[in-house]
Amino acid sequence: MKTQVERARDGTATKQMEAVSGSENIDIRVLLERIANGSVVIMNRGKKSAGIGKGISTKVNVNIGTSSLKIDPDDEVKKACIAEKYGADTISDLSMGGNITAIRASIFENTTLPLTTVPIYQTAAETGLKNMTEGDIIGNMKRQAEEGVSSFVLHCIDNNTLSLLKKRKRIMGVVSKGGSLTCAYMMLNNCENPFIENFDEILKLLKKHDIVLSLGNAMRSGCIHDTRDKAQVAEIKLNVELAKRANEEGVQAIIEGTGGHVRADRIAGHVRFHKRLSDFPLFVAGPLPTDVAVGYDHIAGCVGASIASGAGADYLCYITPSEHLGLPSSEQVREGLIAFKIAAHIGDSMKYGLNERDRALARKRANLDWEGQLRYAIDSERARALAPHEGPCTMCGDFCAIKIMKEFGSCNYSE
Amino acid sequence: MKTQVERARDGTATKQMEAVSGSENIDIRVLLERIANGSVVIMNRGKKSAGIGKGISTKVNVNIGTSSLKIDPDDEVKKACIAEKYGADTISDLSMGGNITAIRASIFENTTLPLTTVPIYQTAAETGLKNMTEGDIIGNMKRQAEEGVSSFVLHCIDNNTLSLLKKRKRIMGVVSKGGSLTCAYMMLNNCENPFIENFDEILKLLKKHDIVLSLGNAMRSGCIHDTRDKAQVAEIKLNVELAKRANEEGVQAIIEGTGGHVRADRIAGHVRFHKRLSDFPLFVAGPLPTDVAVGYDHIAGCVGASIASGAGADYLCYITPSEHLGLPSSEQVREGLIAFKIAAHIGDSMKYGLNERDRALARKRANLDWEGQLRYAIDSERARALAPHEGPCTMCGDFCAIKIMKEFGSCNYSE
Repeated sequence: MKTQVERARDGTATKQMEAVSGSENIDIRVLLERIANGSVVIMNRGKKSAGIGKGISTKVNVNIGTSSLKIDPDDEVKKACIAEKYGADTISDLSMGGNITAIRASIFENTTLPLTTVPIYQTAAETGLKNMTEGDIIGNMKRQAEEGVSSFVLHCIDNNTLSLLKKRKRIMGVVSKGGSLTCAYMMLNNCENPFIENFDEILKLLKKHDIVLSLGNAMRSGCIHDTRDKAQVAEIKLNVELAKRANEEGVQAIIEGTGGHVRADRIAGHVRFHKRLSDFPLFVAGPLPTDVAVGYDHIAGCVGASIASGAGADYLCYITPSEHLGLPSSEQVREGLIAFKIAAHIGDSMKYGLNERDRALARKRANLDWEGQLRYAIDSERARALAPHEGPCTMCGDFCAIKIMKEFGSCNYSE
Repeated sequence: MKTQVERARDGTATKQMEAVSGSENIDIRVLLERIANGSVVIMNRGKKSAGIGKGISTKVNVNIGTSSLKIDPDDEVKKACIAEKYGADTISDLSMGGNITAIRASIFENTTLPLTTVPIYQTAAETGLKNMTEGDIIGNMKRQAEEGVSSFVLHCIDNNTLSLLKKRKRIMGVVSKGGSLTCAYMMLNNCENPFIENFDEILKLLKKHDIVLSLGNAMRSGCIHDTRDKAQVAEIKLNVELAKRANEEGVQAIIEGTGGHVRADRIAGHVRFHKRLSDFPLFVAGPLPTDVAVGYDHIAGCVGASIASGAGADYLCYITPSEHLGLPSSEQVREGLIAFKIAAHIGDSMKYGLNERDRALARKRANLDWEGQLRYAIDSERARALAPHEGPCTMCGDFCAIKIMKEFGSCNYSE
């Protein structure tokens, strides 16, 4: 069967493309062109499709999954369901503890969103970092592909990038888990990156199952004092080359970059630097513009992600309040997701101009229409929970500016 | 007794100026010069001083107070204490319900931070919008001045500004409570703005008690589709003129502006526009870069306030999760305050460069030093509550990137 890219090149719109064209209000011919040249990716699972990239609204990914120290499969499935309920566009299962295949099966069973994994996680967790071989890693990818995973994250730092990393002093070193596992594998086995070494075989697998290649951001900064260095730039450039090879083979690709911890005034420049090098969809984790917001990293991350998506990032990976502290609770998954949906919305207003939803809500608010205001809220359930159950807003009470100005007629209200 | 501005002009550093010079690491001669020309303000109450303005770290104000519909004085005092405990720089008591003088007295008794009020609130609440006179408003200001209020917010829209407002269609009209009360007073009595009409007398009062004049932002946009219009620009220009007159008389002045609801990509430009017109400290409420974050406005506000302070705003008025819904709970006061302390910190990293606190935290994190990380967190108590009580972080467990990279020695860690 042909991949999405191949169909787009043939000029044949799939059902997924038509769905994305409709929901994103983007001309189908433009969409096909962009899927063909790689500037738009459609991540699929069954009937669910998430369009990501040029001219398309910013999407949000939610990470869930067990760790070796906290294994509660039911809780992770619950988090996946909460992610879907509150409007995530995709889910990444990052489980490294317990029966990982069974957890993934259960997430598949209970959700419908496109699902991403980092295959080296399962291999390292089950086979051990020191014992695992290239064959184990690729064998695991094949099994996951058969199960229907929508996208794989691969960290493609090569030995040149690693040598650049070693030359530069960083406070935090490497903070990408998949990146560190891959680097460690390369150093333990004194070899080149296993994903780069087997890239042709991997592309065949991705092509066969039409899986999106997500090129990881192993070299991201782990604190705002660690700035963009040669290792980061080398990783971006290599990722762009690999994305081009994928696109030539008819495989969709996303590049992860400019994530991690980045001083606020540098974020937009980093995104534009990335976008000048390539038009492939840019996936950003955070970024966090400060290190001190421990316990509130979803809020600091919302600032960074708003600026990043406003500058052109296409796809955001959320951060929860328990980032840097532990696995999130399901309530924290919701908090993180909503914070990043706010960031995506703010970013879209910068990228694409003002949104009708804001205008619709403002009109309801101007009419003191509570139900209307709640209906257009980004999380109506939360807004309703905080709203007074009866009567007007308690903030201003009788001295509501809107009421006063309507009574004394000094404003022209637009319809 | 001479005011801070007069002392600064004489070249005499007060204890408050010395305290601000020390805490802000700013040369005392530079500080005196800036207080004299009005680009820095020191808001005082007893031994507590908050420096606000050019070259000084961004400050955060917390609004508390009863409304006509929700009167629980003890709860408001509790909120004031929480504001002080979690690091607010100033408190504004906006009470409009119950025994307002008694509530203010209780806040004075239980806190030490500089306290701001909007005098027209108490007059309107106690005398009624339709009954109150100029004499009532000024009489109330005199009583509050005697009590030791640190700063008064006055909304100085004139009839010209009002006529500009009437010419332009807005979705939300006027959303400033003090602004709407002042406009309504002018329309009811068919008169000029009472604060402008009595400006000389008011300056004498402020000078006598060395109270900071905070010029309100009545014309701010109430939704992101209401853009900066002629009424807004007229208000800014008039406020700048009034601030200059205050400065000439030896009275400190702050101008409130660019707050409300502003599309994210316009915030920095609005702040710079304001700063080109004057160097007086700029006080910003929010701004909110989206209308739909109902229940999460502290998060959307953190994005707007980060961008605003990064672009030059000096002083932020916090927003809580219950903005647009009702008076906040004390827990929501904390949430809003911390979100805005994060914004001030991010803004300062943009204005003044990277902060030692971020570096110190990152070093502790790189050494997997939990206690150290928590110590430098913006809210150590929250961070500690979310942290695992024993053992390592549950997010990555055995597969911690930092641990792995240290074991395999591929990074140079800076000391």
